[in-house]
Amino acid sequence: MSQPVGTLPSQVTGDLYAEVQTFYAQQMRRVDALDIEGFADTFTEDGEVVHAGGHRQRGRAEMIAGMRASLPRYQDIAVRHWFGHLIIEPDAADPDRLRVSYYTLVTQTDREGKVNFQPTFTVEDELVRRDGRLLTRSRVIHRDSPAAPPAA
Amino acid sequence: MSQPVGTLPSQVTGDLYAEVQTFYAQQMRRVDALDIEGFADTFTEDGEVVHAGGHRQRGRAEMIAGMRASLPRYQDIAVRHWFGHLIIEPDAADPDRLRVSYYTLVTQTDREGKVNFQPTFTVEDELVRRDGRLLTRSRVIHRDSPAAPPAA
Amino acid sequence: MSQPVGTLPSQVTGDLYAEVQTFYAQQMRRVDALDIEGFADTFTEDGEVVHAGGHRQRGRAEMIAGMRASLPRYQDIAVRHWFGHLIIEPDAADPDRLRVSYYTLVTQTDREGKVNFQPTFTVEDELVRRDGRLLTRSRVIHRDSPAAPPAA
Repeated sequence: MSQPVGTLPSQVTGDLYAEVQTFYAQQMRRVDALDIEGFADTFTEDGEVVHAGGHRQRGRAEMIAGMRASLPRYQDIAVRHWFGHLIIEPDAADPDRLRVSYYTLVTQTDREGKVNFQPTFTVEDELVRRDGRLLTRSRVIHRDSPAAPPAA
Repeated sequence: MSQPVGTLPSQVTGDLYAEVQTFYAQQMRRVDALDIEGFADTFTEDGEVVHAGGHRQRGRAEMIAGMRASLPRYQDIAVRHWFGHLIIEPDAADPDRLRVSYYTLVTQTDREGKVNFQPTFTVEDELVRRDGRLLTRSRVIHRDSPAAPPAA
Repeated sequence: MSQPVGTLPSQVTGDLYAEVQTFYAQQMRRVDALDIEGFADTFTEDGEVVHAGGHRQRGRAEMIAGMRASLPRYQDIAVRHWFGHLIIEPDAADPDRLRVSYYTLVTQTDREGKVNFQPTFTVEDELVRRDGRLLTRSRVIHRDSPAAPPAA
């Protein structure tokens, strides 16, 4: 199959698009299953997460400790992370490094089946490839707030 | 365009990823339009669905009868199935067979425009290719429940 | 990587699938940021939008004026457009023209973090490629309504 595609510098191939989507599908399966160690393994050893409130976690060990501490919150809810509108930007200088941004919607379903929603977020990730496998090196989570109106 | 991609055994190509997503887009258009016959046609003749409650439907005829029986539920709502985080695993031994899992969120919008949500589900499908066309051979629907906390 | 894919006339390649998804990701980033001029720039100069109520906007200037008029509605909410189930149909006769349809779910998160939902919509777009870049030439937005039951 051959179809014309654009020639923008940031153009992402179909193969890479599918790979990045699959990476997140696997990473979110783990976090939603409360597989804390498995989730941490999808980050580099020195991986960093900056949460929406500004709290920064550095390295897998700190990430694991933080997630363990918040486990009681999840004992009666099934959490699912939904992603939207990925923008994948391969690094022109380093083919094993990608910038990715996406929307997230988080559902929390209780035992009765009622669905609650967290506020929406926009996330900026840096992914790197190590031994052929993608890992998250950096994640910055922004809580969505009302946009500033454009200048008149 | 050429970009490095991983070499995991389960790696899915961009072409196949797009094809599977398109298959589901067409299948869900049909179920959401209450096109029962058209929906059943996206399954193999002996296709099977195991619903979240454990009820098993075998074959297109049984599927159609079951959907006809539940039609009264949908007379005043517009249903939409939303998918997330597809994981597509081609069968190493049989290139015309795929395992796919995904999250689903189901919205029900009433005539006033109010949106209600069903509990979230995770679905496991087996797809097969027949005469170049994907069909669902098996679907197992799991209602999402709180994850068991990891062992300390 | 090589995997068998279907040979349907409307088959979309992985590269084009990724390009179209990226186009929408960028277009929605702009509308959700209230970047009205930037959003209008993702349409052709004569681009047309038919809203769910039947109102038709023709051309970028009219689109910009309409969006400016509705800005007060958004001063205290963060809007996010979520897409689902894209069907991308390249034009057999004109490789620079695509028909795309998709589901949309629109979230509005207020300053306290409460998420409200607009009714769901299904959208039909015509995209064209100009100087290697996709643009929307036509958009028709349908509010989802209960499906007519099939004839018995």
